[in-house]
Amino acid sequence: MAKTLIKNGTVVNATGTAQADVLIDGETIAAVLAPGSRLLGFDIEANVDRVIDATGKYVIPGGVDAHTHMEMPFGGTFASDTFETGTRAAAWGGTTSIVDFVVQYPDENPLERYAAWQEKAAGNCAIDYGFHQILSDVQDSSLTAMDELIDEGVTSFKLFMAYKGVFLSDDGQILRAFQKGASNGALMMMHAENGAMIDVLVKQALEAGNTSPYFHGTSRPWQAEEEATHRAIMIANLTGAPLYVVHVSAKQAVDQIAMARDNGQNVFGETCPQYLYLSLEEQLGAVSDQWGDFEGAKWVCSTPLRSRAEGHQHHMWEALRTNDIQMVSTDHCPFCMKGQKDMGIGDFSKIPNGIGSVENRMDLLYQGVVDGNISLERWVEVTSTTPARMFGMYGKKGVIQPGADGDVVVYDPNGHTSIGVDKQAHHMNMDYSAWEGFEIDGHVDTVISRGKVIVDDEQYIGTKGDGGYIKRGLSQYLI
Amino acid sequence: MAKTLIKNGTVVNATGTAQADVLIDGETIAAVLAPGSRLLGFDIEANVDRVIDATGKYVIPGGVDAHTHMEMPFGGTFASDTFETGTRAAAWGGTTSIVDFVVQYPDENPLERYAAWQEKAAGNCAIDYGFHQILSDVQDSSLTAMDELIDEGVTSFKLFMAYKGVFLSDDGQILRAFQKGASNGALMMMHAENGAMIDVLVKQALEAGNTSPYFHGTSRPWQAEEEATHRAIMIANLTGAPLYVVHVSAKQAVDQIAMARDNGQNVFGETCPQYLYLSLEEQLGAVSDQWGDFEGAKWVCSTPLRSRAEGHQHHMWEALRTNDIQMVSTDHCPFCMKGQKDMGIGDFSKIPNGIGSVENRMDLLYQGVVDGNISLERWVEVTSTTPARMFGMYGKKGVIQPGADGDVVVYDPNGHTSIGVDKQAHHMNMDYSAWEGFEIDGHVDTVISRGKVIVDDEQYIGTKGDGGYIKRGLSQYLI
Amino acid sequence: MAKTLIKNGTVVNATGTAQADVLIDGETIAAVLAPGSRLLGFDIEANVDRVIDATGKYVIPGGVDAHTHMEMPFGGTFASDTFETGTRAAAWGGTTSIVDFVVQYPDENPLERYAAWQEKAAGNCAIDYGFHQILSDVQDSSLTAMDELIDEGVTSFKLFMAYKGVFLSDDGQILRAFQKGASNGALMMMHAENGAMIDVLVKQALEAGNTSPYFHGTSRPWQAEEEATHRAIMIANLTGAPLYVVHVSAKQAVDQIAMARDNGQNVFGETCPQYLYLSLEEQLGAVSDQWGDFEGAKWVCSTPLRSRAEGHQHHMWEALRTNDIQMVSTDHCPFCMKGQKDMGIGDFSKIPNGIGSVENRMDLLYQGVVDGNISLERWVEVTSTTPARMFGMYGKKGVIQPGADGDVVVYDPNGHTSIGVDKQAHHMNMDYSAWEGFEIDGHVDTVISRGKVIVDDEQYIGTKGDGGYIKRGLSQYLI
Amino acid sequence: MAKTLIKNGTVVNATGTAQADVLIDGETIAAVLAPGSRLLGFDIEANVDRVIDATGKYVIPGGVDAHTHMEMPFGGTFASDTFETGTRAAAWGGTTSIVDFVVQYPDENPLERYAAWQEKAAGNCAIDYGFHQILSDVQDSSLTAMDELIDEGVTSFKLFMAYKGVFLSDDGQILRAFQKGASNGALMMMHAENGAMIDVLVKQALEAGNTSPYFHGTSRPWQAEEEATHRAIMIANLTGAPLYVVHVSAKQAVDQIAMARDNGQNVFGETCPQYLYLSLEEQLGAVSDQWGDFEGAKWVCSTPLRSRAEGHQHHMWEALRTNDIQMVSTDHCPFCMKGQKDMGIGDFSKIPNGIGSVENRMDLLYQGVVDGNISLERWVEVTSTTPARMFGMYGKKGVIQPGADGDVVVYDPNGHTSIGVDKQAHHMNMDYSAWEGFEIDGHVDTVISRGKVIVDDEQYIGTKGDGGYIKRGLSQYLI
Repeated sequence: MAKTLIKNGTVVNATGTAQADVLIDGETIAAVLAPGSRLLGFDIEANVDRVIDATGKYVIPGGVDAHTHMEMPFGGTFASDTFETGTRAAAWGGTTSIVDFVVQYPDENPLERYAAWQEKAAGNCAIDYGFHQILSDVQDSSLTAMDELIDEGVTSFKLFMAYKGVFLSDDGQILRAFQKGASNGALMMMHAENGAMIDVLVKQALEAGNTSPYFHGTSRPWQAEEEATHRAIMIANLTGAPLYVVHVSAKQAVDQIAMARDNGQNVFGETCPQYLYLSLEEQLGAVSDQWGDFEGAKWVCSTPLRSRAEGHQHHMWEALRTNDIQMVSTDHCPFCMKGQKDMGIGDFSKIPNGIGSVENRMDLLYQGVVDGNISLERWVEVTSTTPARMFGMYGKKGVIQPGADGDVVVYDPNGHTSIGVDKQAHHMNMDYSAWEGFEIDGHVDTVISRGKVIVDDEQYIGTKGDGGYIKRGLSQYLI
Repeated sequence: MAKTLIKNGTVVNATGTAQADVLIDGETIAAVLAPGSRLLGFDIEANVDRVIDATGKYVIPGGVDAHTHMEMPFGGTFASDTFETGTRAAAWGGTTSIVDFVVQYPDENPLERYAAWQEKAAGNCAIDYGFHQILSDVQDSSLTAMDELIDEGVTSFKLFMAYKGVFLSDDGQILRAFQKGASNGALMMMHAENGAMIDVLVKQALEAGNTSPYFHGTSRPWQAEEEATHRAIMIANLTGAPLYVVHVSAKQAVDQIAMARDNGQNVFGETCPQYLYLSLEEQLGAVSDQWGDFEGAKWVCSTPLRSRAEGHQHHMWEALRTNDIQMVSTDHCPFCMKGQKDMGIGDFSKIPNGIGSVENRMDLLYQGVVDGNISLERWVEVTSTTPARMFGMYGKKGVIQPGADGDVVVYDPNGHTSIGVDKQAHHMNMDYSAWEGFEIDGHVDTVISRGKVIVDDEQYIGTKGDGGYIKRGLSQYLI
Repeated sequence: MAKTLIKNGTVVNATGTAQADVLIDGETIAAVLAPGSRLLGFDIEANVDRVIDATGKYVIPGGVDAHTHMEMPFGGTFASDTFETGTRAAAWGGTTSIVDFVVQYPDENPLERYAAWQEKAAGNCAIDYGFHQILSDVQDSSLTAMDELIDEGVTSFKLFMAYKGVFLSDDGQILRAFQKGASNGALMMMHAENGAMIDVLVKQALEAGNTSPYFHGTSRPWQAEEEATHRAIMIANLTGAPLYVVHVSAKQAVDQIAMARDNGQNVFGETCPQYLYLSLEEQLGAVSDQWGDFEGAKWVCSTPLRSRAEGHQHHMWEALRTNDIQMVSTDHCPFCMKGQKDMGIGDFSKIPNGIGSVENRMDLLYQGVVDGNISLERWVEVTSTTPARMFGMYGKKGVIQPGADGDVVVYDPNGHTSIGVDKQAHHMNMDYSAWEGFEIDGHVDTVISRGKVIVDDEQYIGTKGDGGYIKRGLSQYLI
Repeated sequence: MAKTLIKNGTVVNATGTAQADVLIDGETIAAVLAPGSRLLGFDIEANVDRVIDATGKYVIPGGVDAHTHMEMPFGGTFASDTFETGTRAAAWGGTTSIVDFVVQYPDENPLERYAAWQEKAAGNCAIDYGFHQILSDVQDSSLTAMDELIDEGVTSFKLFMAYKGVFLSDDGQILRAFQKGASNGALMMMHAENGAMIDVLVKQALEAGNTSPYFHGTSRPWQAEEEATHRAIMIANLTGAPLYVVHVSAKQAVDQIAMARDNGQNVFGETCPQYLYLSLEEQLGAVSDQWGDFEGAKWVCSTPLRSRAEGHQHHMWEALRTNDIQMVSTDHCPFCMKGQKDMGIGDFSKIPNGIGSVENRMDLLYQGVVDGNISLERWVEVTSTTPARMFGMYGKKGVIQPGADGDVVVYDPNGHTSIGVDKQAHHMNMDYSAWEGFEIDGHVDTVISRGKVIVDDEQYIGTKGDGGYIKRGLSQYLI
């Protein structure tokens, strides 16, 4: 097995930094050592296969993106990234683990769906992957399946308060699933938007002739998100279940989470880069020669982009800093404009919902460090350590310490990344990037996945199938 | 220099655990390694001076007690622990760093007082020590001195909203000091009790013949603490200064801190073991043959113990868990019953305020883990990592990683500590213990301070003067 | 037309009292005059038909009970009071107006139901009556009907968030109805309990063998009420509709209403005597020879009684005092134990929900004055003036001033009422009273409805059909 | 004694309107009658001395301005309105009662000051007047004096948290005064600004050369008001005293009051027209040929005008509507620009603080009705009824009902008032008006004070000395 020494870097963990060398032996971190490449006189450098000089650079645990939807079936099409293309793009961006969502639609058997997803991913991934399970049909059999799935390493379950007939669980179903989570330790995840309200608003918008992508956002107002967030919190309160709210975008939803936490409840919130950087106003203003005002479809996702005038983005950065929001995932769910998003020309409700960011999350959040919104260690915490703890992977993932998987990124704070330009064009299977034109004052130099260098010197040098399944434990964030 | 290997233990850092060996070379941690005592074939165990087998035990960064008052002059007497006795007691209890308070009384020169405290501590301490500066006389010269003290490693400054004529700063003085802190990066610490209110209530209590220790508590009601906490927060809000509220005991004060944080302010709260475990009701009920109802004087401290019926203790544990309260110090300020506390017989206001806990904090908080109130990693976080980050010592203190000082404690979760009984009698210079009779389901086995074993096998084997001065940097907790 | 002078009493209106005589000419108050029975030398007393001496007594506007369900069809039976028996009981208790609920079940035509209710009431009532409309089937036709009903004087519409298949509207239907209310000025009323949660809890309770009446309460926890209240508030926030939450019982629901109001929303809350006086614990403890632990069925209502240990009742009185709750209705929905409530022996979910209080509300709230919970004028405000303003009857109802209907009650603060005992046995068509044994330090002496004395000297002297329909205007409480 | 009939008007009381005639017999309202000028055949109109036709007009209780400072000594000068000029101006504007402040400076005897104020007012006032007492020196004798003053009809006492050496009480003094208020029923009034903070900020502003009037506002930031408001609330919470916060201008202070009320505390807030209509930005922009940027001095008052960009004014209207703020007074404290305000040229801190509005309050608040910010009845409530209830005058003042003083205003909603223009030039003894240029869509037609018409047909026809002393009772707003 290969032995790699990363020397002279600044190791960044969630609580601070250390000047230290990192020795990876095979797939695992063997030691973190004071710099100098020697231990009690023993010459380490002379005994390894490869030495990476990280002088002046950050050595961080590989990113953990806990919210992706590779090749997800949705609205008659599939998310455009396969496990192969999507995980390779993730690797390019310094992410070495994803947790993807197995989808149970109504009347489907969760365990069968889980097996199907395992099959789709097996042998195709560039980096390690785990699974959450979506439950769209909470009944006795699904609840029983939860126990079995936990044994399989699927320890978190997502429910939806929107998308009637597709994903939606009613409050009674949510209650039952949460009771199960409270008893077996599963972390309950929630898409918190009031679908019944939204369905009416969408219908009204379309009837009024408001068909362009902008109206996707206006027909999913913050009240629908705040309401559903509060409702999920109350059901969690009643049952004692821990709750994780996905893709929080409205500041009022953040406030509901903060209040619940101040009140002692185990409620957690995830946001995504789009809710930190992008706004409804920009979507409104997006017009291109190619697409006209349908250009805005590039940023149609749910929850939607929020108004900058109302201050959601600013509040979100602040909440991320103060830990009222705990972590950042991408909700990576890419669709091409041609042949996919364009199904919604003339009817925004037919636009497949999703933005692709799995490649850009680490960079985008690092820019938050440069801009003074979060600290260097908080960057590592929200992109890697907390996701690993939250979803039962910590120890193996999310930290640089002996025994951890050799998932390490060398990040250059003196590098630069112009997203979508020239050599830095993106690697996701999309015909556009939601992040084109973003300038990042840093650069992913080297990416190591379980001891193997897979990205280096602007080259992807890994192989399809490098990534393996992460059998997760219960969330480590509780209590 | 001695080389020590701690093998086969469970290393606990603030974000989780690792099965790992720790190598200390001289005063510093040289490496954290996968267990097995070998690295790339090199036999580490054979090359060290001492091997400590930590099988089945926790290996944690030494405790950091950021709030002590060794030999502090107060009310015509001195806190009964000298730097020698107090730091030795700390060592017994697994604490390897303290931050003590230099006192400036009105008209005194802060720099002179700092020099005097340095002199008192030098050569006497069993463990490392740093200093905060108390400012009781905010004027131009004090503000200038703040810059110079920061250069000396004194980067945090405490003001008082109580003790008129002794410590109290008025709101204008606080405002000016906070403006200074906002500009030079100093962390502003606050004793948040409304002294003007309390002075009236104390006088009224004594006039009404309510002279026993219990009335110390009732004359310092939660409203006085909540009010002052809110006031300090508002002055911090206006000036942009970071604020650290010491010895928070009232749940309503906790709520003020939580609200400020939810609102994006850099406000932090410290609590102490007494506010987690002890109550006003127990103080009321304390009667002994020796002292009668003056027995309650043993727990006279400020802020005072709070009512259990009102739920302060429960709320405090919860806030500690959810990070609405960030860390736990002792406010170690011991006085003997005979010759010190007994000055207040017949007049509680003459009882020197203070409880001694420097020896017991690590144990008492570990019991919180056993009782399910906090997690194992949160224990390390609130007693060591956060204090180190908060007060500019992280990297050297508060974490087990290469380059850190060799401050390590081996803690046995299968051991037991009966505080104050037989061999486990306390080592503080007090004629009683506030914690007598507490049973702890764990035990401090070995304490290493900068690479030197100073407590082992129920023996203190260090030397007066082992401890050195910690020149602190600015708080690492901001942003 | 008869002319009546009520002399020498203390007239109590919502903002305070006056020593004044009240002259009723025909059906209408003609004048309020300084006491002395003379005006500019004109001898009033000599020119009237009847003089009532109210020396030492309160002269108040007749009570307005804005929430009754006379002969309501529910669960295969009917509320046991007809319009005849129920309004007569109301008159006995000093209430001179009710607003009852027309019920639309799914697929029914609201206008037809309104006509049916008019028919049921016509010629049968002892006092005046108006109608709210329950909408259980919000569709285009119902929304159109709202406009027509407003023209008929039905200006408030009640939706349900519980009782699936019977009353429940989904959130999309609620949204549409609220949009209508925001545009036509209707006041939207809400039964705010999360039915989907409750249905699961009820099923689970019964499956667990918890079948006695107490479990009715435990299967409708405060979380279900708080959640629904918040949800209704958010839909109101989005649409701009005014919202009136009926029968608020949980303190957490009160807090949601208070927050919305502090935030400028037109949200109002009604409570009922049972939520001020009775508790879940007392229901648990209720056992009788006749009914065993089914005795508790007497107090099965929805929302349910709440736990006294949790402090709901105390909080409700406080909210009533500070106007966080605006008014008190009865939710009068009586069922006999024999033949009605007893359908639920062995299955609490089959117990018809409801308590009868229409006769006792004025007395029970007056006791709140005696007990120091509310002021004398607040008594009149919450039982008469605010209900009249809230539901578009003020000017005619809810106040003693010229032009108002001659609905006046002479209330004796030196009288006494032992509810359910001897001569003071209740007059509702129930085989028990929920209030038996309550002692009231006051007494309804004389009740005048539109100028006609209908209760006096412990006699009902009115006639079936005295009461007429109140064609209400829009709520006068908005802005 | 004269008998006056006001016929055919719309009587507006705090809870609604009535079409009614009002008969005043001598100084007192004798009757409120259904319109038509006849009672039981008796011809009222033929038996009175004067008939006022109020067809199409509002008949309202005369305004009660509970916060004025006539000829107040301050900063070496005196408020420019004497009791004579100030009360006459009040009459012009439809205000028929004021409550002015007796000033106790340190070392003065409150009772002597009260006597002095009585002397200043006696025989000089156009309308009725009462007194609050300012306590600037809380000691045993002042506390005793509180009881005696209550017997004199001075039932409310104002303390200051600002103006050190002039008005300021420390928190211990406030505590003692509040204890007294809690026991004798006095209403405690508070000028809630943190003077110690402000004194530093003022000094810093002047040292920085920021001397123009605008910096008066910036050196009294919202934090200083919010903080002091919260502090006063906590002292009230501890003592159980009712609290009335004067001239609330910051939205954050409003929120503190709302929270205290939601929590059941008897806390009340007053705002003033300037905080509803004027802003700091407008003060900054005020420049004139005559005064340059010193023009802004016209609006120097304390609390200061607040930023419109921060939304204080909007929030204040909303709080007034939802009763989070209970009433509107003027804090009438006029100073001329020449010879008074101009003392502060080059040093804003020397500008006498105050705005004159006693003449304009009723009009300015009526414009709030026209603009849709408050309802017609809320106008009467916040300008007359609530002030009367709050300060123990209700029954005599604040309502149109028999037995009330004949203080009545006929207000024409079809009239117009151009403040400060031509015939509508103001009548306050000031060389400018803070309200010049405001257009009001209504007009004070007739003003009657205790039965005597004193303003009519654009003429003041009263006499100096018409106004008498109002011996007030305890606040009627509590419980």
